[in-house]
Amino acid sequence: MEEQVDLVGKAFVDHFYHLFDNDRPALSSLYQPTSMLTFEGQKIQGVDDITAKLNQLPFDQCRHEISTIDSQPCSFTGGIVVFVSGSLQLPGEEHHLRFSQMFHLIPMLQGSFFVQNDIFRLNYG
Amino acid sequence: MEEQVDLVGKAFVDHFYHLFDNDRPALSSLYQPTSMLTFEGQKIQGVDDITAKLNQLPFDQCRHEISTIDSQPCSFTGGIVVFVSGSLQLPGEEHHLRFSQMFHLIPMLQGSFFVQNDIFRLNYG
Repeated sequence: MEEQVDLVGKAFVDHFYHLFDNDRPALSSLYQPTSMLTFEGQKIQGVDDITAKLNQLPFDQCRHEISTIDSQPCSFTGGIVVFVSGSLQLPGEEHHLRFSQMFHLIPMLQGSFFVQNDIFRLNYG
Repeated sequence: MEEQVDLVGKAFVDHFYHLFDNDRPALSSLYQPTSMLTFEGQKIQGVDDITAKLNQLPFDQCRHEISTIDSQPCSFTGGIVVFVSGSLQLPGEEHHLRFSQMFHLIPMLQGSFFVQNDIFRLNYG
């Protein structure tokens, strides 16, 4: 069971950042109207506003490298919480930006998951 | 509603790290048998094992300084997810250790919350 959670968490993370780096508009498929994103302290709710925010970030290309993925089941939702750390490479920037991000994934009828909670922070200092 | 979530998140964070730095055994009051902690990749379940882990960390004294707190409601549990970044000062160590930590708080009948999910990572690099 615990291994299953890790597999689902890793598969989600791989899928999420692959879309982010290669087909960012397609991230809309992972959110629902109830979804919430807090991006560097800015709160955004709902798939439409979240998708708009992600597509309007001030860089067209980027590449995420994942350092750690920690996943846990949430017995109260049947979902999974996933905690990611990694670095973000922007075009023309020499240095990577370190970041941490968490997701709370809720199961859907079809056996897939959507992102209910998404919190992103760059790691400074 | 959103402000209420922020207030609850901040109050929890203040309480949690105050106990951690001043009365670490009392952290047991914040966990339940269903609780899960992932500490630097190590998975621990249940209030007893989590409390033992926290009390056996290889430092007696520490001081957490909080940089950011992001809180969101989880409509599926009536709970709150809280994402924290900050630094940890250990005795005799000149440098702070940067960390990120997330909590999924579940409401209890008495109006308080317990920690269902807790994931902690030091930020390297």
